[in-house]
Amino acid sequence: MLSRTVSELLSQDIVIPELEIKGWVRTFRANRFIALNDGSTINNIQCVVDFNNFDESLLKRITTGAAIQVKGVLVESQGKGQKVEIQVSELEILGDSDAEHYPIQPKKHSFEFLRENAHLRTRTNTFSAVMRLRSSLSFAIHKYFNEHGFHYMHSPIITGSDAEGAGEMFKVTSLDSENPPRNEDGTIDYSQDFFGKETNLTVSGQLEAETYAMSLGKVYTFGPTFRAENSNTSRHLAEFWMIEPEVAFMNLAGNMDLAEDFLKSVIKYILSTNREDLEFLDQRLQDEDKRKPQAERSTMTLIEKLNFVTDNNFKRVSYSEAIDILRNCKPNKKKKFKYLINEWGTDLQSEHERFLVEKHFKCPVILFDYPSNIKAFYMRLNDDGKTVRAMDILFPGIGEIVGGAQREERLDVLKERMAAANIPEEELWWYLDLRKYGTAVHSGFGLGFERLVMFATGMSNIRDVIPFPRTPQNAEF
Amino acid sequence: MLSRTVSELLSQDIVIPELEIKGWVRTFRANRFIALNDGSTINNIQCVVDFNNFDESLLKRITTGAAIQVKGVLVESQGKGQKVEIQVSELEILGDSDAEHYPIQPKKHSFEFLRENAHLRTRTNTFSAVMRLRSSLSFAIHKYFNEHGFHYMHSPIITGSDAEGAGEMFKVTSLDSENPPRNEDGTIDYSQDFFGKETNLTVSGQLEAETYAMSLGKVYTFGPTFRAENSNTSRHLAEFWMIEPEVAFMNLAGNMDLAEDFLKSVIKYILSTNREDLEFLDQRLQDEDKRKPQAERSTMTLIEKLNFVTDNNFKRVSYSEAIDILRNCKPNKKKKFKYLINEWGTDLQSEHERFLVEKHFKCPVILFDYPSNIKAFYMRLNDDGKTVRAMDILFPGIGEIVGGAQREERLDVLKERMAAANIPEEELWWYLDLRKYGTAVHSGFGLGFERLVMFATGMSNIRDVIPFPRTPQNAEF
Repeated sequence: MLSRTVSELLSQDIVIPELEIKGWVRTFRANRFIALNDGSTINNIQCVVDFNNFDESLLKRITTGAAIQVKGVLVESQGKGQKVEIQVSELEILGDSDAEHYPIQPKKHSFEFLRENAHLRTRTNTFSAVMRLRSSLSFAIHKYFNEHGFHYMHSPIITGSDAEGAGEMFKVTSLDSENPPRNEDGTIDYSQDFFGKETNLTVSGQLEAETYAMSLGKVYTFGPTFRAENSNTSRHLAEFWMIEPEVAFMNLAGNMDLAEDFLKSVIKYILSTNREDLEFLDQRLQDEDKRKPQAERSTMTLIEKLNFVTDNNFKRVSYSEAIDILRNCKPNKKKKFKYLINEWGTDLQSEHERFLVEKHFKCPVILFDYPSNIKAFYMRLNDDGKTVRAMDILFPGIGEIVGGAQREERLDVLKERMAAANIPEEELWWYLDLRKYGTAVHSGFGLGFERLVMFATGMSNIRDVIPFPRTPQNAEF
Repeated sequence: MLSRTVSELLSQDIVIPELEIKGWVRTFRANRFIALNDGSTINNIQCVVDFNNFDESLLKRITTGAAIQVKGVLVESQGKGQKVEIQVSELEILGDSDAEHYPIQPKKHSFEFLRENAHLRTRTNTFSAVMRLRSSLSFAIHKYFNEHGFHYMHSPIITGSDAEGAGEMFKVTSLDSENPPRNEDGTIDYSQDFFGKETNLTVSGQLEAETYAMSLGKVYTFGPTFRAENSNTSRHLAEFWMIEPEVAFMNLAGNMDLAEDFLKSVIKYILSTNREDLEFLDQRLQDEDKRKPQAERSTMTLIEKLNFVTDNNFKRVSYSEAIDILRNCKPNKKKKFKYLINEWGTDLQSEHERFLVEKHFKCPVILFDYPSNIKAFYMRLNDDGKTVRAMDILFPGIGEIVGGAQREERLDVLKERMAAANIPEEELWWYLDLRKYGTAVHSGFGLGFERLVMFATGMSNIRDVIPFPRTPQNAEF
């Protein structure tokens, strides 16, 4: 007999006279009602057993976490809370779960505890919803780019260049660390390492993606990136996933159009495919909010926040305008900001970004034309000589979600900016080649995938939106 | 004016009175015909310039590799070889390409040369076709799993466990290698490293994927994996991408069904979406074949090979049956095999796998129930005590493309096999937990993505199917 999924059965409105289903017991109450889940949906299916028909020894083994197989009939539910239920005719225990020792008890667990049990935490409603959403967002991203003529490219993970300077890098080696081969001067002889030189884990696939954009036209990466920064916060991971589209012949305005359309599209996708997961998380956050003092509560629910993004045009504001607004706004004048905005040229903090989105414009905001000295060397210099065609997209609750730019396509200007940033030309000879042979305007942006998953699920700690988080002092599993 | 893509224009059969397009010059002949490409398709669009209307200084800058913008009219082509062409009214050089120094000349380059110019090689027909196919295969994979109720999971790249033993691993560290902190006994003090212990790059996401299958039901990974093996061959990379589905409640037969359906589906997908890329590569291989001695020529063209997979049922044969066939086959008796098959228990080589597929069964083959001592500890032991529920899928031309297994779900047997393989239980406490709490039959397989891309494109060197290959002594770009 074909095994069914919970998701499939819950969408039925006819009686199914004979069926088989496998899953894990979430709860078993009154020696009669099993809530069964198989991961296909956040909802459980109720399996009703008539305890007169089963051995007590079997019933005792129907514990939280046990894997079981059930045969029976799908009927309209007699009880409240569900449309259909299974009247069980046969039940088999596939794998027991010792109720006393099973870590995932049918009660509220702290997220800290669940992080220590990350191999089991998707057995809870919250984490199964988060990880289904993470999966759906991934698919929405691939689908969007595929439908828009982009080619997916895998940029390298191990890299011989550390030119981007986006932060501290992890070293990759296959030398015997205890006793590495040495040069005559006593330094380590990396010519004997696997790649014949020092290598690191990538911090971004953008530069390589540019090489592909300059031949295939529209490309994007979606892969892991790394930072060896000792930041033990709820917003940093040492290993995280990035999406980096890059498009030839596209200027900064086109880049903004693309990013806005892309973000709206992937959020609309999950609003339609993962409605039940989102409603569960929305309710969870509302319950959590109720326990907070009035002043700390969210002004929008999770689903309202998602609609805020899909339903509003993103306001495009230059960095200079934004500085004017911030300099003259109440929280700045009343010194409510932690970092006061005094002058042009200063980098914005999350509090400023959120003020612009949540209080001032009341819509997602795209800031552009940033001072060149707070942005990377590869961003296109404007004619004013002091700003670059960078853009950041700001969302409610989290601030910056996307950072992008039109790239410097002029060989001479790029060389000057590399020199100013102390990047040797030999390091990036191939990147310079793109400006030597058939250079053209091109642009792209980077989206930290976990930031998007946090936004879409309302989770407040980045460790709770990736299966097995890597953070300082933690690489368990 | 909206910019068009070459792919879009080539599919038109109406006159477009006014259009704009940007791309790179592939060739310019007779001072009149520009073959323009923008990466959207393998085909170029012919842009016809009337040299009387343009400055000679401009015409001289229309060189191979130059980026140009063209305005004009799309009309039915007067010449042969294309349906439509652009009559150019305006032409602008966006980026020059110095014809003398541009590495990608309009002639045949060796793949070795192009590997050294991997940042430019997608400007050739062959590599643009290969990389578009790589992208389409990636999408087909995500699409297949999405449509079949699988959740995509990102398994960790940096791992603290080296338990899988699938090969040598790269070390990841942020310690100062020249002068690492030391313990009292002189060994390196890894407690001061970023993660507080020794960490490596993953060789497989399977074990972590199992934790997700045992809660979300059906999951798959698609991410980079690593081997620090010093294998300088055309079949090995130090960094490559793997797809690893894992399904709860699925036995080995279900695993075979899934893998066969999956492979057929993704190959059908590219046969329909990337027909022109495949036809180009098919022709390329046929031309290459003509230059070989008769005996070395392929028996099937590229597209025939793809149809061979989609149109045939995969033959399911036990390892023991296969050994009987091989022991008694002509090439074995006549000692034509490099490795002769004498007895049960020996591992199969590519020559044996290809014999079974290409000569004996003449269809893709799934071998199953391998001797336990040549397979991994986590594969389910059969009742005979000497074979495990492993399977390998064999394809023409390349041999093994997929390796999978039903997993050992019994705690006691798993512990015994780990002990036999010298894997400490503390290393995999979380993996054992899956067998303690609600264990169930489950299965999965691994597909090396580059092997699939090689099969689908007919490329014979694995370095030519990944954007920037990482191999011994090579981590350029």
